[in-house]
Amino acid sequence: MTTLAQRMSRVQASAIREILKVTERPEVLSFAGGLPAPEAFPAAALLRAHAEVLAENAAAALQYGPTEGHAPLRAFIAERMTKRGLPAQPEQVLVTAGSQQGIDLVGKALIDPGDAVVVEAPSYLAALQSFSSYGARFAVVGSDDEGMRIDELEAALRRAKPKLIYVVPNFQNPSGTTLSLERRARLAQLSLDHDVTVLEDDPYGELRYAGAALPPIAGLEPRAPVIHLGSFSKTLAPGLRLGYVVAEERMVRALTIAKQAADLHSGSLAQHAVARMFETFDYDAHLRSLRRLYGERLAAMLASIERSFPAGTTWTRPEGGLFVWLRLPGGLDAEELLAEAMRERVAFVPGAPFFAAEPQRETLRLNFSNRPPELIAEGMARLGAIVARRMSDAPRVATA
Amino acid sequence: MTTLAQRMSRVQASAIREILKVTERPEVLSFAGGLPAPEAFPAAALLRAHAEVLAENAAAALQYGPTEGHAPLRAFIAERMTKRGLPAQPEQVLVTAGSQQGIDLVGKALIDPGDAVVVEAPSYLAALQSFSSYGARFAVVGSDDEGMRIDELEAALRRAKPKLIYVVPNFQNPSGTTLSLERRARLAQLSLDHDVTVLEDDPYGELRYAGAALPPIAGLEPRAPVIHLGSFSKTLAPGLRLGYVVAEERMVRALTIAKQAADLHSGSLAQHAVARMFETFDYDAHLRSLRRLYGERLAAMLASIERSFPAGTTWTRPEGGLFVWLRLPGGLDAEELLAEAMRERVAFVPGAPFFAAEPQRETLRLNFSNRPPELIAEGMARLGAIVARRMSDAPRVATA
Repeated sequence: MTTLAQRMSRVQASAIREILKVTERPEVLSFAGGLPAPEAFPAAALLRAHAEVLAENAAAALQYGPTEGHAPLRAFIAERMTKRGLPAQPEQVLVTAGSQQGIDLVGKALIDPGDAVVVEAPSYLAALQSFSSYGARFAVVGSDDEGMRIDELEAALRRAKPKLIYVVPNFQNPSGTTLSLERRARLAQLSLDHDVTVLEDDPYGELRYAGAALPPIAGLEPRAPVIHLGSFSKTLAPGLRLGYVVAEERMVRALTIAKQAADLHSGSLAQHAVARMFETFDYDAHLRSLRRLYGERLAAMLASIERSFPAGTTWTRPEGGLFVWLRLPGGLDAEELLAEAMRERVAFVPGAPFFAAEPQRETLRLNFSNRPPELIAEGMARLGAIVARRMSDAPRVATA
Repeated sequence: MTTLAQRMSRVQASAIREILKVTERPEVLSFAGGLPAPEAFPAAALLRAHAEVLAENAAAALQYGPTEGHAPLRAFIAERMTKRGLPAQPEQVLVTAGSQQGIDLVGKALIDPGDAVVVEAPSYLAALQSFSSYGARFAVVGSDDEGMRIDELEAALRRAKPKLIYVVPNFQNPSGTTLSLERRARLAQLSLDHDVTVLEDDPYGELRYAGAALPPIAGLEPRAPVIHLGSFSKTLAPGLRLGYVVAEERMVRALTIAKQAADLHSGSLAQHAVARMFETFDYDAHLRSLRRLYGERLAAMLASIERSFPAGTTWTRPEGGLFVWLRLPGGLDAEELLAEAMRERVAFVPGAPFFAAEPQRETLRLNFSNRPPELIAEGMARLGAIVARRMSDAPRVATA
């Protein structure tokens, strides 16, 4: 029987994706995934763009393409990132199969077995898995309402001599929190001072529903080795598998070599179609309507959690993104809760797998982008009732 | 300055892709790439299929999808492979971003640093690069007109105790040769007896222009650990980035875990569109017309090599695929020849990078799928004339 490589023993099938297979049954009211709202996909514009490039330029749109990506799409990304506070040339852009591939290519290009990688507690699960597969050990730093704790990071830099600092600065997955401007500046400075690469994973940055946009870390200190990852998965559609890396040219070249071996290049047709669409599509208007839709859903979720969960429950109040992070009262275990919730056909993702060390079992992640407000209210009511029941069943601490 | 992982020092930018950047200039008559003929892309059928799925089922076609692939496409692949001699269930299929990703996922899932991988001399360059990045050392076995030398393989199995045997059985890249039926059977038996996994990389199998189709190695001995890779890049269009793995379910699960970390899943829209297209598209008629087109180009190339190159030149006579492999007379160096050829605006790929050890510098690879017969004749005339000139310039060995 074929023996797998040792790196595979460090990687399990994503707990979340395994949970999703069960929770995505149509009869389940699921807040487990990170699915965008399909009714917000710009399907008509994508249809027109695909039809145009296939009618006018199929010879190029269906052919092998450059590993770095389709030139007009790279130029669009560079221009847009420049506007968003990260000045970039097209040569600094690598088009990837979602930002997930960006994470994996950075892991492949930078991490030697045994290298330390700084991650937040909690952190994005599929990044932990990818880094693990390259033999990373994790240096975990805490996070609070302003994101990664930079004071803890400073200690970790001295202690662990990390190769990489992984951070999701905007509306973090899973916690929903945003790294404050002051911490961004300190992180960029630490990156420069310690010559440690920061991987700034920003798939949600354009989905802000309240407050002012903050600049990318990569734009705050041009000399710091910061790799920025972005994605069209949440702003256009995940099924296109289009994301991007923005970094210094030398890093883009290294990641391009890694991508050559991985899949030669990202889909030519998807890249040609999206570049064509952007020639006439009002992306900013589309984002405004997406923000309005998701902002309402976030508000609905926050209000219905408030209404439905018993005292002692705490949760984050994100300003954007797709997720709310909730802490159950009385130390209730979220995995045990999920089993009971599934019987009542409501689902979420337990928080434990998001911790590289010391899982906090009373945490869970709730997605609000994929259901309308009334179903969010219904789901939170069901879930809150289960939690309330469990709390009243639980043995009480004797009071005087 | 960021230090790259050690695995990156073992991987250089693909020499071929670097050459291609130069040779694909419009003024160059290039036989360097492995590009399918764009005029044969089924663009109209793909346009219709994309329009249909985007009009009727955009919510699913643009959404995240299962890592394993879109179920109807997996079913189509399983059924077709069963007909081609590899009985398979849909659960044994993993949809990948071209067969390149299949190679990389197998490398990631199986190869520990220092593991031996058996490869042919010459072998597919991007597979050598991917295996190198996972720390493989190569056990090289020779090949002849019937493909991999199985007698040499037997010695290598005893000597190197390899983890993996990598073989391109049909119309090999770069040599164009095909593994004989007898050798396939022996390879499958050796795989079983030695419990060594065979990676059967078959992107060209359906492009046979002469002779009878041979069964996949993976179909010859069901108990042998053979992983089969296929692709729609050459038969539909490479820009879709759709290929597949067919293997035992346990291996498919391991490769699925590796793919989760790599890119979550392959493009949903491309998968939905191709599955939709196959509902009504006459794929076999399309393949027949493709075989006719490429068969004529292969014949044109063989005839014009015969006509244009000086005595002492030898070359393969493939029965399919995209490439002819040529050996220059008098030990001429193909890289030196390329420099001269580029001045006359004709290009090819030197053979040396295809050797994991002991490069044969007098070899080169010629692609015939991307140019019509008259341009093939023109290109071979230019190239043959340069070689003839070089031969007459070269110092002669004194004859009695």
